[in-house]
Amino acid sequence: MQALFFEAGRAAVRATRRPVPREGFALVRVIASGICNTDLELRRGYHGFSGIPGHEFVGRVEGPLESAWLGKRVVGEINLPCGRCDWCRRALGRHCPKRRVLGIVKHPGAHAEHLTLPEANLHEVPDAVSDEEAVFVEPLAAACEILDQVEVGLGTRAAVLGAGKLGTLAAAVLEDAGADVRLLGRGSRARPGSFDLVVEATGSREGMPRALRLVRPRGTIVWKTTHRAAARFDAAPLVVNEVTVIGSRCGRFEPALDLLRSRRVKVTPLLSAEFPLSSAARALAQAARPGMRKVLLRPGR
Amino acid sequence: MQALFFEAGRAAVRATRRPVPREGFALVRVIASGICNTDLELRRGYHGFSGIPGHEFVGRVEGPLESAWLGKRVVGEINLPCGRCDWCRRALGRHCPKRRVLGIVKHPGAHAEHLTLPEANLHEVPDAVSDEEAVFVEPLAAACEILDQVEVGLGTRAAVLGAGKLGTLAAAVLEDAGADVRLLGRGSRARPGSFDLVVEATGSREGMPRALRLVRPRGTIVWKTTHRAAARFDAAPLVVNEVTVIGSRCGRFEPALDLLRSRRVKVTPLLSAEFPLSSAARALAQAARPGMRKVLLRPGR
Repeated sequence: MQALFFEAGRAAVRATRRPVPREGFALVRVIASGICNTDLELRRGYHGFSGIPGHEFVGRVEGPLESAWLGKRVVGEINLPCGRCDWCRRALGRHCPKRRVLGIVKHPGAHAEHLTLPEANLHEVPDAVSDEEAVFVEPLAAACEILDQVEVGLGTRAAVLGAGKLGTLAAAVLEDAGADVRLLGRGSRARPGSFDLVVEATGSREGMPRALRLVRPRGTIVWKTTHRAAARFDAAPLVVNEVTVIGSRCGRFEPALDLLRSRRVKVTPLLSAEFPLSSAARALAQAARPGMRKVLLRPGR
Repeated sequence: MQALFFEAGRAAVRATRRPVPREGFALVRVIASGICNTDLELRRGYHGFSGIPGHEFVGRVEGPLESAWLGKRVVGEINLPCGRCDWCRRALGRHCPKRRVLGIVKHPGAHAEHLTLPEANLHEVPDAVSDEEAVFVEPLAAACEILDQVEVGLGTRAAVLGAGKLGTLAAAVLEDAGADVRLLGRGSRARPGSFDLVVEATGSREGMPRALRLVRPRGTIVWKTTHRAAARFDAAPLVVNEVTVIGSRCGRFEPALDLLRSRRVKVTPLLSAEFPLSSAARALAQAARPGMRKVLLRPGR
């Protein structure tokens, strides 16, 4: 099969052996995959990554032949937990210390014609959800994770910092939950100390000092940015104002699929371009442009 | 009266006018005051401070003559809220944006023969609690604040970083609440990722990276350090492990008084020396020595 490889900072599409699903795994033919900022970080050497990237996808199950999933259109959770540790036993495999992660840690990713995933990771995509929308389930789940971590409801005054893809999805999810949301791009102004909840999704280390200015005393900052440069900020306001900062990463797929099926969150405005997998280098260049929205790869084309 | 003054980085004891209590305030004769690390920071110019420092004290109410508090031995909460804003109305005057703070922000402090405080800030000291113990109510309340912020109970695996005064008090409070506590000084080792709760009370910027190594995924770090240098750490583990960081400052006095009265926390081992107020300069020098425990000032001597 064809697949995109990151090796020593270079990106190249080349032929490789189709993966063989292990016991309990499914073989999935990728219909479309999405380029995430994490992919761009991996290319620059984050996690010392080398291999096939990609963790946002929609696909169709092609094997094994005895699988109950055969022929189904699916998306898949990206963490492959060990299944035996305390975390896994508590259904928190997303935090399993031995986990592999699709296209990120020791498991070949979705920017390829085929991938494998444990059947337990799969979710069937409802007919009402298009291929293009389904690619957003993983990032939308990451946005939904905020609702699993913080009480949000009518009257919650929320600011989302960073008007990129994740920020836009987070704002939509918070709005759907009843919050009064302001999505703040780089230049936007807002009153200091006026927000119950600030979501830091800037991808830059300017985000945290700004979040600390905007959040009210005893308010909450949800920290989504995983940039490589060390965070650096004056922590005194955090301590003095007794602010809570919650790290936030992947989320459950169910609420995300539900938001898409019920059309309560619209993701297609976030799509910017599609490329065949063979043009992945061009697609990556486009995805890396500032302010760029979601770029999809189509292995079949 | 005699009082300690910090002015332009210098400390000097000199005569000044005895303060006159405003409407609703009490005049308190200071029996003893405690030197806090914050005092040492104020001397170095933190908050652009200039005036009489000191916010840990025990005293006796000497006025006004019609006060119901007259003659009582008291300790006092250090925040002087405006009484009119949203925070004050929600009984969170500790976060009132217009608050003054005894010996820290725009209100003369306790390293003096007399101070004034709103009567609403006062707490009577039970006979079972000695003067020396009572001086610890304020820092002990700051330690108790952790219990108001985080669920702690039997089986909570807690680490306290920083074996100074605040760290030692925090460890005692957590132990009393049923936690399995390790108090970790600079050289102490502990297993990474093994603590449900880490209290960062090192006063140094090495504390947060260390706390992030020790806390388990989805664990909680209570951040007590308000040092002047900007915090600097790799935030990726915070986000990836979905750690919660909670800034923590002053606390309610009631639980602290209760711990002292019932002898569930013993603070006298934390006492290191007493000086007359007139020798405040020597006392400050001693308090600033690394590893030094609590140094008291006695205005009456």
